[in-house]
Amino acid sequence: VFQEDEYRLGSVCNPDPQVRRRATEHLLECVEIAAATGSPTVSLWFADGTNYPGQDDITARQQRLAEALSEVYAALPEGIGMLLEYKLFEPGFYTMDVPDWGTSLVHCLALGDKANVLVDTGHHAPGTNIEFIVASLLRLGRLGGFHFNSRFYADDDLLVGAADPYQLFRIMNEIVAAGAHLPGSGVAFMLDQCHNVEEKVPAELRSVMNVQEATAKALLVDREALRSAQAEGDVMAANAVLVDAFSSDVRPLLAELRQEMGLGPDPLSAYASSGYAERARAERAGGAGQGWGG
Amino acid sequence: VFQEDEYRLGSVCNPDPQVRRRATEHLLECVEIAAATGSPTVSLWFADGTNYPGQDDITARQQRLAEALSEVYAALPEGIGMLLEYKLFEPGFYTMDVPDWGTSLVHCLALGDKANVLVDTGHHAPGTNIEFIVASLLRLGRLGGFHFNSRFYADDDLLVGAADPYQLFRIMNEIVAAGAHLPGSGVAFMLDQCHNVEEKVPAELRSVMNVQEATAKALLVDREALRSAQAEGDVMAANAVLVDAFSSDVRPLLAELRQEMGLGPDPLSAYASSGYAERARAERAGGAGQGWGG
Amino acid sequence: VFQEDEYRLGSVCNPDPQVRRRATEHLLECVEIAAATGSPTVSLWFADGTNYPGQDDITARQQRLAEALSEVYAALPEGIGMLLEYKLFEPGFYTMDVPDWGTSLVHCLALGDKANVLVDTGHHAPGTNIEFIVASLLRLGRLGGFHFNSRFYADDDLLVGAADPYQLFRIMNEIVAAGAHLPGSGVAFMLDQCHNVEEKVPAELRSVMNVQEATAKALLVDREALRSAQAEGDVMAANAVLVDAFSSDVRPLLAELRQEMGLGPDPLSAYASSGYAERARAERAGGAGQGWGG
Amino acid sequence: VFQEDEYRLGSVCNPDPQVRRRATEHLLECVEIAAATGSPTVSLWFADGTNYPGQDDITARQQRLAEALSEVYAALPEGIGMLLEYKLFEPGFYTMDVPDWGTSLVHCLALGDKANVLVDTGHHAPGTNIEFIVASLLRLGRLGGFHFNSRFYADDDLLVGAADPYQLFRIMNEIVAAGAHLPGSGVAFMLDQCHNVEEKVPAELRSVMNVQEATAKALLVDREALRSAQAEGDVMAANAVLVDAFSSDVRPLLAELRQEMGLGPDPLSAYASSGYAERARAERAGGAGQGWGG
Repeated sequence: VFQEDEYRLGSVCNPDPQVRRRATEHLLECVEIAAATGSPTVSLWFADGTNYPGQDDITARQQRLAEALSEVYAALPEGIGMLLEYKLFEPGFYTMDVPDWGTSLVHCLALGDKANVLVDTGHHAPGTNIEFIVASLLRLGRLGGFHFNSRFYADDDLLVGAADPYQLFRIMNEIVAAGAHLPGSGVAFMLDQCHNVEEKVPAELRSVMNVQEATAKALLVDREALRSAQAEGDVMAANAVLVDAFSSDVRPLLAELRQEMGLGPDPLSAYASSGYAERARAERAGGAGQGWGG
Repeated sequence: VFQEDEYRLGSVCNPDPQVRRRATEHLLECVEIAAATGSPTVSLWFADGTNYPGQDDITARQQRLAEALSEVYAALPEGIGMLLEYKLFEPGFYTMDVPDWGTSLVHCLALGDKANVLVDTGHHAPGTNIEFIVASLLRLGRLGGFHFNSRFYADDDLLVGAADPYQLFRIMNEIVAAGAHLPGSGVAFMLDQCHNVEEKVPAELRSVMNVQEATAKALLVDREALRSAQAEGDVMAANAVLVDAFSSDVRPLLAELRQEMGLGPDPLSAYASSGYAERARAERAGGAGQGWGG
Repeated sequence: VFQEDEYRLGSVCNPDPQVRRRATEHLLECVEIAAATGSPTVSLWFADGTNYPGQDDITARQQRLAEALSEVYAALPEGIGMLLEYKLFEPGFYTMDVPDWGTSLVHCLALGDKANVLVDTGHHAPGTNIEFIVASLLRLGRLGGFHFNSRFYADDDLLVGAADPYQLFRIMNEIVAAGAHLPGSGVAFMLDQCHNVEEKVPAELRSVMNVQEATAKALLVDREALRSAQAEGDVMAANAVLVDAFSSDVRPLLAELRQEMGLGPDPLSAYASSGYAERARAERAGGAGQGWGG
Repeated sequence: VFQEDEYRLGSVCNPDPQVRRRATEHLLECVEIAAATGSPTVSLWFADGTNYPGQDDITARQQRLAEALSEVYAALPEGIGMLLEYKLFEPGFYTMDVPDWGTSLVHCLALGDKANVLVDTGHHAPGTNIEFIVASLLRLGRLGGFHFNSRFYADDDLLVGAADPYQLFRIMNEIVAAGAHLPGSGVAFMLDQCHNVEEKVPAELRSVMNVQEATAKALLVDREALRSAQAEGDVMAANAVLVDAFSSDVRPLLAELRQEMGLGPDPLSAYASSGYAERARAERAGGAGQGWGG
């Protein structure tokens, strides 16, 4: 039986207890692998959901999810945390079993301190204010990390910052305001993107640069001026503090910083001139030849 | 100072502590009135939010909200509960301080058992699965009640069931499945609508009828057949159980029931033939005349 | 070169004239096949679009599209029409070259009377009023046909009528009001769905039944009462005419009709008892066995 | 009768011919005023729509709209054009009679060359690509103008560029690419905003500055490099051309330009130090006193 067939009606939320058992065993194996490889987190996203009203019982599925999570959580060794990701829709088109941050948080609260919410920036309904969710989770000490990407419509998985750089800046502004960009904050920053029309490595480099630029701009925010304008209820002035930081061109600053670190000022040029792409292509061609020929 | 001016930047979340104090005092007065009038609940919706990034600190506002709620909650006499309503946007166009069920739930959990979430069916982002939220809150014992209405776009406040009768049915299906339609369930069912182009009393009657029809259909759902099809993973059959109930015409049944209760079979005809509208109009014309003439 | 690679940046809108040429040749071949097979329409949907701002010139792509369409249109033999489908997003996540009915219509108007708009019910932005588009295209004589399906979020491709049966009824109501359900109206009614969790043939049967029920309800609308209430500006009464038709249970009527036509009253039972599924499975198993064994 | 009562069911689309007549007469009067005052355009937005399915006939309303527009168009003197604005929803919550650019365009095409589409940046469904519409209308020679503002959710009417400055840049990029920012292009650039929490005059100044910055960035786009990268299908490079222009800080440039024109480098400081706000307040206080006392 192919995995997609077995999990057609869900994994840990499947109505069939045998399928749920196999899915949970698989998760427990992941915990073992995390322990063996020294990974600090087990990050969970479930493709579980339903397509049609009545297809399954919403509440029963929540209960099954809670049971599986509880078993996996209990198996976490010292020093390994759990991240629970939410997603509005897809592959489930009627319900997803963890569709929003509220559902993820409810499960994390039931599990304990080591379970936290993972925010994928492409997994929200239109109009959702993501930085509000980030700020709320930070306030509760429950922001586990990010899957960064950007979107114009749904879970488009474009380069982070490509669709709405101001939104990325506002997210990083909440992160910086809370000190969550500092080492030891416990927030995991990850990319989760899909490169259909662009070269993969340059796309990843550009993504990292976009997050760097947004972070640099967030660090430029004059927090004292911001607090003061907010306290006085001066809307235009308070907004201007953020906008001024965002309107700044931080690229020369970042280039300088890279050079101070002994790196090329522009990662994309450095990559292009490194010859890595050509080397990798050559090696893979050879490797593939051997592989298939063997 | 007009209220709208004073509360321009928020009520209990306002950056100005004096405004917050006045807003909290007002809420405490509401609790007193509820006690004096025997109202079982104090239902809170806050028009608090911001229009521009940076206008105010998201986290500080959550803190202020938590403090005000805590003070009001502490003042609740025995037997009076608190409902906390959420709304995605409007009047705040950048943030609302309670934009979603997650935020409302977080505050209710911090307050205690007497604070529960109020679901206004028009206060969600496009694509939000409302019955999922209803089922989740029922599972957690935290569904406080409803503001019923319907919408095609935003908070349109049309007659409940007018935009998507199947959605209303699915909501009532979760309610009925959990027994929350029964007296003593503690869930408050309220209408919150706006009648711009239609007559108000008939519109309210029709709204009640729409909820009655959706409830009747939910009661027709063959729960044993549903559970059995769900357990077998028979998607088409499980969905068909719901659809069959929804496709049934429950109007004759409800007409019969009304007649058994000594009422007219059709509330709208009964209202029209009662002469109430004409009497009310005549009385008000007189009353208004006296009022303005006095 | 695989097709997906070649068409990575578009087919007839591709910046590369050679790729465009191949795509257009492919379309011309389709016209020939249509002529050879007696198909009355060539139905076009383009996966063309872009993922990133600046990736390509929006206007230049429209021009390329217009040129290809014009060449294909010119090749249409007597009696064969062209349908141009639109889709908001996917696979293009920044632009689609035909994202909405307006764009499709603009191209059809430029081409001539034989080019008409195809409406896929899952290809709109949230909140789009599809029956308004249907009514507008009917008024202009430019509705070419439908790809029926239903959706809660995006292009979910669920069974038509499964997500919002009232919407399907409202669409069919515009069709019936304009007489476009009658033979010779020139409107093509097609299903375009994806069955991930349900059995395919029963799903297709159910879809046809859903369209039949919506059409039957639309035929029940008391058009004289509707017109009269609309003319008097009686909002509640006019709406009630539609709602009454929708609330009616047309299943017995349709069952009767099927029996009069010598068919089983319930297509799903008839299918189940026909043994077709088992026969097909057996035949395919044999065929596949031979195929793989050969 | 109050206007809102009379126009409750629409103005030129009202089912009552007498109301339609009055609405059309009012429009004809507007044309006369435009002629008398030397206004180059009559800009039309209709609050017409319906709230409930069946409330009125969608097609009949289009016909009534076409008739009224045709009469007004015929009355336009030499040199006066007509703009037709569209809006997705509100005040109509089921249909708006001109909900999208397609509908507006259809009417403009039927009227003639002097009727063009007006784009209000807040009047679209979530996910709509506004610059695509702008580019499409420019290609057809049918872009009449803009109502600029910004939004996170619906028709929020916030300061233009406040919600998504990158979107404003992309819109201005299409304008600049087509030369439509140049005098004589015939495109009218207007602000249509609502200042609920911020001071009005600074808000308008800031809005103009935001459009200036977006335009300056659009002028910085290296069009030759863009075309070349697009032609080569180099997605990352083509996107980078746009992003580089957007990431530039154009504020020093604009400050310099203002000084060359003999203006203060920062309009907001210039306004604050001008004493205008205080003078206007003082005059209004006196003027109001006199006015009401007279």
